[in-house]
Amino acid sequence: MSVATVSRALRGLPNVAESTRSRVLEVATRLRYEPDPAAARLAAGRTHTVIVVVPHLASWYFSTVIAGAEAVCNESGYEFLVVGVGNIAECDRLLDEQYRIERRTDGVVLVNIVATDAQAQSLRERGVALSTVGTRAAGCPSVFIDDVEVGRLAAETLAGLGHRRIGLISGLGEDPLNFDVPKRRLAGFTIGLREFGLSLDATLVVGGNFGIDGGAEAMAHLLDLGEPPTAVFAMSDEMAFGALMEMSRRGLRPGVDVSVLGVDDHEVARVLSLTTIRQHVASQGAAAARSLIAVMASTPVSLEPVISPIELVIRATTGPPA
Amino acid sequence: MSVATVSRALRGLPNVAESTRSRVLEVATRLRYEPDPAAARLAAGRTHTVIVVVPHLASWYFSTVIAGAEAVCNESGYEFLVVGVGNIAECDRLLDEQYRIERRTDGVVLVNIVATDAQAQSLRERGVALSTVGTRAAGCPSVFIDDVEVGRLAAETLAGLGHRRIGLISGLGEDPLNFDVPKRRLAGFTIGLREFGLSLDATLVVGGNFGIDGGAEAMAHLLDLGEPPTAVFAMSDEMAFGALMEMSRRGLRPGVDVSVLGVDDHEVARVLSLTTIRQHVASQGAAAARSLIAVMASTPVSLEPVISPIELVIRATTGPPA
Repeated sequence: MSVATVSRALRGLPNVAESTRSRVLEVATRLRYEPDPAAARLAAGRTHTVIVVVPHLASWYFSTVIAGAEAVCNESGYEFLVVGVGNIAECDRLLDEQYRIERRTDGVVLVNIVATDAQAQSLRERGVALSTVGTRAAGCPSVFIDDVEVGRLAAETLAGLGHRRIGLISGLGEDPLNFDVPKRRLAGFTIGLREFGLSLDATLVVGGNFGIDGGAEAMAHLLDLGEPPTAVFAMSDEMAFGALMEMSRRGLRPGVDVSVLGVDDHEVARVLSLTTIRQHVASQGAAAARSLIAVMASTPVSLEPVISPIELVIRATTGPPA
Repeated sequence: MSVATVSRALRGLPNVAESTRSRVLEVATRLRYEPDPAAARLAAGRTHTVIVVVPHLASWYFSTVIAGAEAVCNESGYEFLVVGVGNIAECDRLLDEQYRIERRTDGVVLVNIVATDAQAQSLRERGVALSTVGTRAAGCPSVFIDDVEVGRLAAETLAGLGHRRIGLISGLGEDPLNFDVPKRRLAGFTIGLREFGLSLDATLVVGGNFGIDGGAEAMAHLLDLGEPPTAVFAMSDEMAFGALMEMSRRGLRPGVDVSVLGVDDHEVARVLSLTTIRQHVASQGAAAARSLIAVMASTPVSLEPVISPIELVIRATTGPPA
């Protein structure tokens, strides 16, 4: 009996006589045969596995993107794995030593990770599909939000309430894996200020490193200024949480003494009544996974980026200047 | 030249003449040789990869355990992958179809996932090391907190403040992947009440499904009772966040009108000034990874469970009854 016949019989494909199939199954059971995915990949070039690569595993944003992608992969019958790359060196290693990816997966979703054109092309040549969230890579589907509009909308919202001294808690420069997002939000913020005849005051811009502690320290710095801002735009909800914590420590009332506006609509934002610019994080992960699966299935996929919508959610931490 | 000599030369092992080594490296470079981990696994039986399996990828607790394990694996030079199993069927499939695990990894950390004795033994027989967080599996190192003591300490803290009607927001029965933890915390809570001459009032026990929304709904139910509790123990901080959100909606002051006590010390707990029973989640992931790596290296490892410490963190959401 040929290897191909046994394979077809085991996989339930047609063109195998029933008597042959039963004999194959009987022998397979007796030998306790189990398919070996690594060997199957070597033979057939397919793992039926999707890998999502993120910079930080312990972060609300990334774990929510992951969960969105996971749901789609599960529905489509793909195995789903997650890899974290904590720093640029690890990220480069993963994208440069592509044999590590190639043997494990048919498709990769990069989340807020920048692949060079050469890296993206090389993955394609190795038969690994690619899609991205938050960044773009040459020749791949991508999904992100309009970060310039996020910044502009933040400035418009706070300046529209009458604020003239508006602080900015940025991630800028401190998270090199994710450095385009703060730049684009800053550019939009500057545009939004200009619409109200304001200009960016560099003394009111502080890095917060996208975390609660960073946000608290940045807010402390802003509140310690001779003339503190009356409103603060934090480029993520987690930094806004830190800002609120620092205000609470000083007995300041959000939306009354100082306004705070975040980005994300983190699941805890509503608990803190945080005004924020909502993005649909799980949907972005799902969209990236769907595009990836289409590429893997050789279905035509638009390479135009999918712009995921944002919306202002007004809660209690913003109001007119005191 | 033998395969073994080439392999030793490429891996930098001794017993290869320098001239042989340079010749091998020169040829490998010319042929653009790259090691293939899947093939290496087939040949040598080792992937040098650790997989962490969790029930929910988008959850603070699990992503924090993952990050703790990841740091240890990175330090030790292991590749690190994460797999989510969203329900019991998927979990059983993963533990029953062990060839899916075996070909990908040398070691698995199960987080709050119960492996039967047969499943644990079968993995061992396949040469896959196992360690667990939050549960125990036969013959494997494990790390968890004393969940009975968590419940007892919660009752002691609230009853010690003078509360006599104490509500309980539990995860009980609603998350079958994780059903031992609520049971143990409930048992301890009952013991703690008894120390103050109180008994568990079943009408004050509501399921909250370990989420913010579940916690809010459970709190609404408790506050709508004819005689609502004066204090509430939520079995997780996320459920406590929901309880606080519901109180805020009703204009009730935490720690004054109703006391709320959580479990975890979630990173946002301090922002909300939540009194909680802290556990060290990242440390548990790190401890499980260290034990796993020791097992994989055939280092003697204690099979006595590691009990990770807990501690009461008193903040502003608890006080004496109004």
